[in-house]
Amino acid sequence: MASSAVTYAKENQQRFLGELKDLLRIPSVSTLPQHKDDVQRAAAFIANQMRAIGLENVEIIATQGHPLVYADWLHAPGKPTVLCYGHYDVQPPDPLDEWKSPPFEPTERNQNLYARGAVDDKGQMYMHLKSIEALMRSTGKLPLNVRLIVEGEEEVGGESIAKFVREHSSRLKADFALVSDTEMFAPDLPTLCVGLRGMVYTEVEMTGAMTDLHSGIYGGAAPNPFEALARIISKLKDENGKVLIPGFYDRVAKPSGDELNAWKSLPFDEEHYRKTEVGSKELTGEPGYSVLERTWVRPTLEIHGMPGGFIGAGAKTVIPAKASAKISMRLVPDQRPDEVFKLYSDFVNSLKPRGVDLKIKQYSLADPIVIRTDNEYVKASTEAMKEVFGKDTVYIRSGGSIPIVADFEKYLKIPSVMMGFGLPDDNLHAPNEKFHIPNFYRGIESIIRFFEKLGR
Amino acid sequence: MASSAVTYAKENQQRFLGELKDLLRIPSVSTLPQHKDDVQRAAAFIANQMRAIGLENVEIIATQGHPLVYADWLHAPGKPTVLCYGHYDVQPPDPLDEWKSPPFEPTERNQNLYARGAVDDKGQMYMHLKSIEALMRSTGKLPLNVRLIVEGEEEVGGESIAKFVREHSSRLKADFALVSDTEMFAPDLPTLCVGLRGMVYTEVEMTGAMTDLHSGIYGGAAPNPFEALARIISKLKDENGKVLIPGFYDRVAKPSGDELNAWKSLPFDEEHYRKTEVGSKELTGEPGYSVLERTWVRPTLEIHGMPGGFIGAGAKTVIPAKASAKISMRLVPDQRPDEVFKLYSDFVNSLKPRGVDLKIKQYSLADPIVIRTDNEYVKASTEAMKEVFGKDTVYIRSGGSIPIVADFEKYLKIPSVMMGFGLPDDNLHAPNEKFHIPNFYRGIESIIRFFEKLGR
Repeated sequence: MASSAVTYAKENQQRFLGELKDLLRIPSVSTLPQHKDDVQRAAAFIANQMRAIGLENVEIIATQGHPLVYADWLHAPGKPTVLCYGHYDVQPPDPLDEWKSPPFEPTERNQNLYARGAVDDKGQMYMHLKSIEALMRSTGKLPLNVRLIVEGEEEVGGESIAKFVREHSSRLKADFALVSDTEMFAPDLPTLCVGLRGMVYTEVEMTGAMTDLHSGIYGGAAPNPFEALARIISKLKDENGKVLIPGFYDRVAKPSGDELNAWKSLPFDEEHYRKTEVGSKELTGEPGYSVLERTWVRPTLEIHGMPGGFIGAGAKTVIPAKASAKISMRLVPDQRPDEVFKLYSDFVNSLKPRGVDLKIKQYSLADPIVIRTDNEYVKASTEAMKEVFGKDTVYIRSGGSIPIVADFEKYLKIPSVMMGFGLPDDNLHAPNEKFHIPNFYRGIESIIRFFEKLGR
Repeated sequence: MASSAVTYAKENQQRFLGELKDLLRIPSVSTLPQHKDDVQRAAAFIANQMRAIGLENVEIIATQGHPLVYADWLHAPGKPTVLCYGHYDVQPPDPLDEWKSPPFEPTERNQNLYARGAVDDKGQMYMHLKSIEALMRSTGKLPLNVRLIVEGEEEVGGESIAKFVREHSSRLKADFALVSDTEMFAPDLPTLCVGLRGMVYTEVEMTGAMTDLHSGIYGGAAPNPFEALARIISKLKDENGKVLIPGFYDRVAKPSGDELNAWKSLPFDEEHYRKTEVGSKELTGEPGYSVLERTWVRPTLEIHGMPGGFIGAGAKTVIPAKASAKISMRLVPDQRPDEVFKLYSDFVNSLKPRGVDLKIKQYSLADPIVIRTDNEYVKASTEAMKEVFGKDTVYIRSGGSIPIVADFEKYLKIPSVMMGFGLPDDNLHAPNEKFHIPNFYRGIESIIRFFEKLGR
């Protein structure tokens, strides 16, 4: 039976979607300095929303980087306290020419809302706000105590929120965290994410000559930084995808037999995945592991871009003075980011060819994590989703990283419930990111029901 | 003793320099489509100049690409005919932030004129025009017959002029060509360039997934095109700079013992070259060959840029769908560009890792060449330069490529005199390109005296 809050949410779906579109129009790309003001505008938008729906102690918290937005409502004595986490920053939209509609002009097509940040994470974070609004407006109060913390640096490593959690843990005191920044395993299949990979993101900056040189005049005598980078990159992994950094796998933990068995019964067709999600001729990665194992519980190393030299149309015969490679690793329990960064740096330095200099920049570190599921919050969330979707929840891991989840566990000593409503083909971090609109509504309803259950 | 033409040139130096600056303000970057109109403007500028100084049959010749500019003056019966060649297109100016003054705002500092194209080749081509003007204005005629052909595609492979030379050789009938697009071996040391490397410029385009993918979600299963490129690039050369393409060195000819001996007496200090020109910690390249050999008579392979993926500031966790590498080879006699392209393509294709597709684009091919020196034109040019510089001319080769010189030999059956007045530190193809202003003036005087000698 639908509560008055659920009814309210259903009646206001169109308005909720319109508001989300307004938020998506703000290009809050956290990694690009030219979007700093947009990031601030997005923070202000969230803060205004929080005030509008009746939350208290709303505060835009300045940090060394982009601001945090905090709010709470703590008038349900004896009831649990949830810490709702989300992020309002987004990935850069490039390559722009592959978007079918502009990334910051939200566009509806086939029940999907297309925009950068639609699902990661503006749309999902907005579900929290709209569930709270529905409960507050329909009943005048909330069934449990609520704190919200929304950050603007998730896509660039989340340093400021990590610092805030470490240093102000009492301000975030709660019984559990609700994180909606993950996806469902398949359409209509309610899903809880119970594990995340960690990350080490780096840039290797290679310097050869002191200035760009003519490749005719100097080719054969001057070092080429791209060649040096290629030589190093080719030695970081073998042809099968095994990472060759000494000691890299030493702490890699195996998932339990139960977990592995449960994954075998998930509806997953490797050939369908290859064709519809990846679209490459073949899948790659370590032999002897399934795709789910390779992306969930095996670490990996990827190259994201190689700035430097000439990248325009046509030909330029230059030996660039500098070139660099953006290289990251995804880690799994029990790998340690700082230790892996050290192993990686030592190995990269040991591979440096003659004639060049290299520097390694570290952009972000994140711990891998496996989440506890033996608690009432997980139970209530799966019951709520069963009411909305009519199906039992599956437990999966994700290959992505949400660094703050490990910090919540470490510093706040609370478990997270990772209730995500994205879909596997949502194009996260890629052109044509989308959020399936029915999932936006079902997500709001699931969260309302989840909170109502915990308040009983 | 100075002729009236030499006196005229000396009296008009400041005006000549001012005109050159006007030409340098036109950003005629041939490889970038957005500069197409600028390239046309530069062609029109040259044509107007030709008319102004009394040349005849001035014509802007449309081509499939950028236009050629032609002019002649053929009223010296019984005298030799020179074909003056130059190019009015320039390299792209990036990286822009390394220029001390804007690339298309010519700026004088320390007797140098800084601008993109200052020496390569607008400034040097302009010496031809101003020598002709000085002779024409001071005597009412020229001491020999002159044809000029100026192209706008030298920096992108020179396809149109090559076609024109092949198909309209009678319109370019001459006894020899004068090419001023090379450099002096050292300041104040008059130099003729007698050999050029050839070139094969390519782009390897690598495709993995059908769209950019989130490296967390897909890392471990999706192919990474940068990794594939790095793997291939690392196998194209060994750590010592030896190219590993099978058959690549089969046709490489050795320079004569005389030539090698002559180079040994050139004023060349490898450590000074490393410090002041290259500026790297060490020089690289094949062991057992001197720097001059490595850059003049040994082929090489260079990476110029690797477009694709994320190259902004900071971090983006993407596995790009596509990435590519701009790769060129410099060839030496008797390597054949089309044959080398085939060997290279076959080898690159044989190295393709699984999961990816690759395509190889060919931007330009140029023959390597060694020039004949046993003719009166070479003799007259060295005498002229001795009068101006007070020193004997040295014969060198260049590691660069001027594709048209081989075509002049092949289709017009004429030798080229490569009289260049650039300096080794002119930053060709790099930020802060310059032309040493005294060399601009001495070049004009040398060419006047050269033409006067041939007319006697």
